[in-house]
Amino acid sequence: MDYNKKSLDLHKKLQGKISICSKLKLNSMDALSLAYTPGVAAVSAAIAKNKRLAETLTSKANTIAIVSDGSAVLGLGNIGPEAALPVMEGKSAILSEFAGVNAVPLCIDTKDTEEIIRFCKLIVPNFGGINLEDISAPRCFEILERLEKELPIPVFHDDQDGTAIAVLAALINACRVTNKVLHSLKVVVNGSGAAGLSIARLLISQGVKNIIILDSIGILYKGRKNMNKYKKEIAIMSNRQKFKGGLREALMGAEVFIGVSKGGVLDKETVRIMDKDPIIFALANPTPEIMPADAFEAGASIVCTGRSDFPNQINNALVFPGLFKGLLRKKSKKVTKKMKLKIALALAYSIKPAKNKLLPHITDKKVVVTVAKAV
Amino acid sequence: MDYNKKSLDLHKKLQGKISICSKLKLNSMDALSLAYTPGVAAVSAAIAKNKRLAETLTSKANTIAIVSDGSAVLGLGNIGPEAALPVMEGKSAILSEFAGVNAVPLCIDTKDTEEIIRFCKLIVPNFGGINLEDISAPRCFEILERLEKELPIPVFHDDQDGTAIAVLAALINACRVTNKVLHSLKVVVNGSGAAGLSIARLLISQGVKNIIILDSIGILYKGRKNMNKYKKEIAIMSNRQKFKGGLREALMGAEVFIGVSKGGVLDKETVRIMDKDPIIFALANPTPEIMPADAFEAGASIVCTGRSDFPNQINNALVFPGLFKGLLRKKSKKVTKKMKLKIALALAYSIKPAKNKLLPHITDKKVVVTVAKAV
Repeated sequence: MDYNKKSLDLHKKLQGKISICSKLKLNSMDALSLAYTPGVAAVSAAIAKNKRLAETLTSKANTIAIVSDGSAVLGLGNIGPEAALPVMEGKSAILSEFAGVNAVPLCIDTKDTEEIIRFCKLIVPNFGGINLEDISAPRCFEILERLEKELPIPVFHDDQDGTAIAVLAALINACRVTNKVLHSLKVVVNGSGAAGLSIARLLISQGVKNIIILDSIGILYKGRKNMNKYKKEIAIMSNRQKFKGGLREALMGAEVFIGVSKGGVLDKETVRIMDKDPIIFALANPTPEIMPADAFEAGASIVCTGRSDFPNQINNALVFPGLFKGLLRKKSKKVTKKMKLKIALALAYSIKPAKNKLLPHITDKKVVVTVAKAV
Repeated sequence: MDYNKKSLDLHKKLQGKISICSKLKLNSMDALSLAYTPGVAAVSAAIAKNKRLAETLTSKANTIAIVSDGSAVLGLGNIGPEAALPVMEGKSAILSEFAGVNAVPLCIDTKDTEEIIRFCKLIVPNFGGINLEDISAPRCFEILERLEKELPIPVFHDDQDGTAIAVLAALINACRVTNKVLHSLKVVVNGSGAAGLSIARLLISQGVKNIIILDSIGILYKGRKNMNKYKKEIAIMSNRQKFKGGLREALMGAEVFIGVSKGGVLDKETVRIMDKDPIIFALANPTPEIMPADAFEAGASIVCTGRSDFPNQINNALVFPGLFKGLLRKKSKKVTKKMKLKIALALAYSIKPAKNKLLPHITDKKVVVTVAKAV
């Protein structure tokens, strides 16, 4: 199917994928007097006395904001807040359909770290959680860290932890299928943006010791030049043997390649340098680091991509709907490391995996239930 | 009916009066691929090239923000953003039900004028208009003025212009019913907040010359002490004879009393000082400046209140749903003076008025159509 043209036509027809509806018919004076003035004054007065009542008397407890500055949207990069809006509407539609959670897209016209943080603080009264989306690295790391500390509601950066959780789940099942042991794998993560560093952190926290991370310059190692604070941190925790060089040097004997970088950067010859029957997650979108057919030809035993038109899609839409449903229901204040592992395990063990089916399907209604329960 | 208890019960049951829904079923991979990735990338790419396409490919053109700081909510005053939320949800429900307009409540945690202005600028990419609500005077005047100048989308402060338009419409019909001429009336406006000053401005712009405005200290006159910039401005345009004193002095021989002040401040004896058969708009909520029965006993020919349980309710819900429907449809950039007069005239002439029915009823479906057309 030509998704591009069809999607443009669909968006033109719909003029927006979401709508805001009243839960009540307001066709009588009595209905209006209860939902609006004068009756609503009693509700406002009650909340004025005890702010926490907003959680039971308004939509707050079941509504999140999807905040983006449009600086790192899909594979398109810094396309600005207006252009990010269709993506955030899509996430809102998914949250509504799959998890029954209200999500308000707020694509904002600033790239300033402090202003984005302040913006999130200003809107707290309305929301039970905040989903950061498509904010470029390294700003996204500081923004998430600060908000996790400074806000009374949970904050989640989908491009960091959503992707990392889905990758961990897929890797757990890849191990189940191939009888490998997660923490003794040699893993190469190609890409040091939001997703790359978060995947690396989560894998390290799960005991993966032999891990090498690359950015567009090459392998990260302690003492390398041109690294931001977050790359420096991860360089210390990874690549203990201080390998230097590029992707070829990194992949020597590796069992797992995780690409969250750019289309076409991995060729068949380089795959052949890896260990026997390697596991390839080529997650660049829409063009993967290597096409599945090429990867298999070069010996891969398992190939995952970010695309819906190949088997084995790794998509954070497996995570965020259930995650927010669970967070809101439990009134959790934070997404913890333990939560992330639990969600990955629950996702992985919700199916009997096979080489071409490592993860459940997004449209499977059980996914949200499984993830929400794990939270 | 005991609206207070019933309304609390209803809000407890609903846990929010609005919900965000997907316009699409997302139960297949194809549906997801069109509404979300990969198809949505084509839509984002198109908007990245031409920002204005957001108006046809997203919800932007039919979605407004309802922005409040919770500083002047109903008759409750400065109760804060959480407590303002049920009111804004009510407005959102009304906009959805009556006008088919999406409205996102954003009750924000700041009272700072510059920060509120900046906040509105940040959210412009998502919205076709902004409805300011329940922001206290005099900050609301500066905020509205600045935003009208600095934003590319229309901004409307309901408590200023919404109320003023509804009052003008009611006064036009009061004149029709009593055979009086609007611009030769002697009008007293009691209250110099958002509503009071806006009503006075709109009446003056319609040629009403004999008008006296009061604040809690007394009559505004040129040179009086303790007046902010906005009161000074209106003092110059009103009260040409420089009357001084309080409500009694102001009402001597007046034909119209418009109260947007506090419950119970007008007594029968003072009504008797007015001209014969005076027109009384006692709009303080929930307790009017004078109860209708008392006003009639003191000789009033027409009495309006802000309450839904008396005849002749003056409510800005007559205005804002149709106004935004019209603004969004016409892609207007500003709410002009001419627009305000046209709406008031359209509202007034949409019915054959009587002393106890000056305005159409809010639940009358024709109201929105009438107002939107006038825009």
